[in-house]
Amino acid sequence: MIANTERSKACLDRIKPHLKQVEAAILEQANAFDPAVSGYIEYLLDTGGKRLRPNLAIVTGGAVGGEPNGEHRRLGLILELIHIATLVHDDIMDGALMRRQIPTASAKWGQSLAVLLGDALFAHALQLTSEFEDSAIPRLITQASKDVCTGEIIQTQRRFDLNLSKKDYFKIIEMKTGALFAAATEGAARISSDDPSMAENLRDYGMKLGTAYQIYDDSLDLLGNEADAGKTLGTDLEKGKLTLPVIHLIEQATETQKTKLNKLIINREPLDTGILAGIADYEGAIERSLQDARSVLREATDCLAGLADTPYRDGLLGIAEHVETLVDSCQVSSY
Amino acid sequence: MIANTERSKACLDRIKPHLKQVEAAILEQANAFDPAVSGYIEYLLDTGGKRLRPNLAIVTGGAVGGEPNGEHRRLGLILELIHIATLVHDDIMDGALMRRQIPTASAKWGQSLAVLLGDALFAHALQLTSEFEDSAIPRLITQASKDVCTGEIIQTQRRFDLNLSKKDYFKIIEMKTGALFAAATEGAARISSDDPSMAENLRDYGMKLGTAYQIYDDSLDLLGNEADAGKTLGTDLEKGKLTLPVIHLIEQATETQKTKLNKLIINREPLDTGILAGIADYEGAIERSLQDARSVLREATDCLAGLADTPYRDGLLGIAEHVETLVDSCQVSSY
Repeated sequence: MIANTERSKACLDRIKPHLKQVEAAILEQANAFDPAVSGYIEYLLDTGGKRLRPNLAIVTGGAVGGEPNGEHRRLGLILELIHIATLVHDDIMDGALMRRQIPTASAKWGQSLAVLLGDALFAHALQLTSEFEDSAIPRLITQASKDVCTGEIIQTQRRFDLNLSKKDYFKIIEMKTGALFAAATEGAARISSDDPSMAENLRDYGMKLGTAYQIYDDSLDLLGNEADAGKTLGTDLEKGKLTLPVIHLIEQATETQKTKLNKLIINREPLDTGILAGIADYEGAIERSLQDARSVLREATDCLAGLADTPYRDGLLGIAEHVETLVDSCQVSSY
Repeated sequence: MIANTERSKACLDRIKPHLKQVEAAILEQANAFDPAVSGYIEYLLDTGGKRLRPNLAIVTGGAVGGEPNGEHRRLGLILELIHIATLVHDDIMDGALMRRQIPTASAKWGQSLAVLLGDALFAHALQLTSEFEDSAIPRLITQASKDVCTGEIIQTQRRFDLNLSKKDYFKIIEMKTGALFAAATEGAARISSDDPSMAENLRDYGMKLGTAYQIYDDSLDLLGNEADAGKTLGTDLEKGKLTLPVIHLIEQATETQKTKLNKLIINREPLDTGILAGIADYEGAIERSLQDARSVLREATDCLAGLADTPYRDGLLGIAEHVETLVDSCQVSSY
């Protein structure tokens, strides 16, 4: 399925006021903290992030039935806050100095404060879940949060493990990124519909979209331009995180080449990510990863087949196409 | 008010089966995690902690009305899980190597995994809150979690700040320790009674009990014996955390003495905690802190005046007396 461009634009117009409300609500959350803390939280919230999860919750709300409402906005708000909290903790673990063109919390205020700010933001986000009428929504949100942590834990365990399979990699990224996307789409579907197959299809859409997005993000880390990305790149491999392009490269390597990769990655000789990216590109491993992302995106849009023909459905298709554009942009930058 | 020893013992007998159930439930929680994660969680849960918060929730449940029930046990379980999660993160920030005679998560598996395991455990604990009938209980639990983080953040901000007042110190420990104790007693009261003044009195009891307990714990850090405590001690001052005995010492110091303390604490010359503890003891600053703890404990028991005359009320009085015994034990070890 492909989006009707006109209708996809109509969807954008319709969701704009909702997104504006969510953005305002995100920034307002700083006021819900002790004055000693709210300044830090404000800094974390006002990052000009893409707000993908609120976007998904709102568009799905419209696509499943009627118009998006306050519960969809609240779902988007909560998931975005959880997302920001996980980024704060991620940046500690990765030792990342910059995110979205500004210093990370851990770079700015040190690890201890960053751990606590992430915790406080997470606690606050989960406090907001008590306002949902249907108690299935809070459960879904906390389960997704647990999945994010679990995915990250498995990723941390498997650092520098050259036996990490494509299957393992997909499990990791489904948990660490797919879970919150899926919570946005499944949660929004459950808010608007009692049909369990509707919820399941939208969950699958979100999960696959998130998976494809993470493959893009991982490829960007290997290939990308820091100034464009606004964050420290090339950290995945340095930290021993094997991402899809590298897994493809290892899979197709000869024994001699494996020894060379081993030397490059495991022995942690000063690692020039540029060289590894060059090799991965030359061997077609990056292209294969991007193809994987595209094929997951096709599966994502297939999950939307049962939706009524509305601008919001085109909106969901449009989001998938936007991710595909990102995937394509990765390819362009490589040779 | 003082506890009737016989009746306080009768309370212990009555709550024993409930505590056993909570202990089993705590250990079972590891099964609720992905197999890749459950082994770590099991290690965190099986620490032989004192389970003070479950104890409080259960005894309060009995003291407020009838007998403790499953909701009181669930409240105790959740608060204990949150407590364990915060300890995991505390140990990262403090660089603590041992807790309860065994290596901390961060010492055993590194900071990154410890951050994530704390997050996962916290998410899981909050997931369990969706099972309460009354949605006020989850809100109370998440608010307490937020308060714990806020207290820790303020403490971190005010490190090496010799102007930290007694009032500031009490705000910090009320948030970082009192909040979870208060959530145990207030939450348990709300589960069993609709009377808001009952909930408020029991909240105050828990808050004051937690405050007194933290004063004891802080004094132990300055004075105590590591082998007895089973954890790394003397870290508060090294990390710049000014606790009550030190605040008393600064308050009563002459200008010349202040300069000396400044040199000892702020300039971070290799700090011999033993010397500072010796001075604080000699100057009576430790005794004054322990007197503060005793007076807060008296206020705590005063909050129980409205309770019916049951073994559970004596149980709550007995818990306060137990904390007083701990406070007294600190004094004994000093000279």
